[in-house]
Amino acid sequence: MSATDTNDRSRVRQARERASYERSAAYAILDQALVCHAGFCVDGQPFVIPLLHARDGDRLLLHGAIASRFQGRAARAMEMCVTVTLLDGLVLARSTFHHSANYRCVMVFGRAQAVTDPAEKAAALERLVEHIVPGRAADAREGNRKELNATGVVALPIEDFSIKSRTGMPEDNVADLELPIWAGVLPMGLATGAPQADAHTPSSLAAPEYVRLYRRGCA
Amino acid sequence: MSATDTNDRSRVRQARERASYERSAAYAILDQALVCHAGFCVDGQPFVIPLLHARDGDRLLLHGAIASRFQGRAARAMEMCVTVTLLDGLVLARSTFHHSANYRCVMVFGRAQAVTDPAEKAAALERLVEHIVPGRAADAREGNRKELNATGVVALPIEDFSIKSRTGMPEDNVADLELPIWAGVLPMGLATGAPQADAHTPSSLAAPEYVRLYRRGCA
Repeated sequence: MSATDTNDRSRVRQARERASYERSAAYAILDQALVCHAGFCVDGQPFVIPLLHARDGDRLLLHGAIASRFQGRAARAMEMCVTVTLLDGLVLARSTFHHSANYRCVMVFGRAQAVTDPAEKAAALERLVEHIVPGRAADAREGNRKELNATGVVALPIEDFSIKSRTGMPEDNVADLELPIWAGVLPMGLATGAPQADAHTPSSLAAPEYVRLYRRGCA
Repeated sequence: MSATDTNDRSRVRQARERASYERSAAYAILDQALVCHAGFCVDGQPFVIPLLHARDGDRLLLHGAIASRFQGRAARAMEMCVTVTLLDGLVLARSTFHHSANYRCVMVFGRAQAVTDPAEKAAALERLVEHIVPGRAADAREGNRKELNATGVVALPIEDFSIKSRTGMPEDNVADLELPIWAGVLPMGLATGAPQADAHTPSSLAAPEYVRLYRRGCA
């Protein structure tokens, strides 16, 4: 898809050389990220809330308790912008001006629909758990009817989206390159600590491998 | 400040036991986070974009090139919602339903004003660099007039805000506690990799201590 095929709202205006509209690249970012920021408007007032998400084919599943401000409105199919950002590093230039960050960001625009069918909702919740901790869905107890009723899931089609990213070294002015200032990149990623079992987990029950060896784009 | 003192838009509706409105706690979250997500509305269409930020006393500085969609509109003082989220861990319950995340989130609502005074803008840019890499501002070359003109900074007063957070272990149903399923928390935080010098940095110039020993709430 070329930039000219996209809708106006998803067309990147600023630093277009950092923009792309490739579906596979967008999916890789959505799949790596653990948190998204969902934005919506109420009478011109913006709200941006963090949510757990998962990609299910060509749609984005968003989790939230059904009573929240967001879910009630999303069920009425309001316009949303869901943004996912991965911070890959800090870019330290010789000049203050050229300091930057390396990152990968996807913005998805569209109208979310509530997932209401019980079987579809149960599958969506498993997909969300599996997105967050791959391997976990098979171990956890499935949701029962009461739990499914108490949970809200909305689905946003991944149709109108854009990617923005930056990689690589600082871009200092040529005149600054001789300055005796260290310049480069400090890579960043997600780190995990040692798993902490709760008080009800018997000491004979070790943390599963998918917890102990959890990795997600770590630096 | 109690919840009843806050404006309607910043009053937390869902899971109120996870809400707070304490300024010092909000500042700690804003100061630790490297990226914020700024939301604004254009004719009912929400936009959520990632930005570098810094706290400067009781206001939030947001950085962006002056030509962008965001900055042009922010300069006209539109309503914004700036959300900062720190992911502290994954919460693995015995049931799919009770899976969750430990996090700390601040939402700041208000109208941002462009910083236009050259001296104030230069100070704001130094504050932004110093927020991202404490110790760096003193080393980097200051911005010149041309660079300051090409940079946009807006300031958002931290007046109307709310915090939402979750800590601690999963909250499984009592009936599930006997299930032979490992449950607990997988702590998460930011990790840094080895600093990568750019091609113009002489090998005799070591990465400064503030880069080598960079820490920011690592797991």
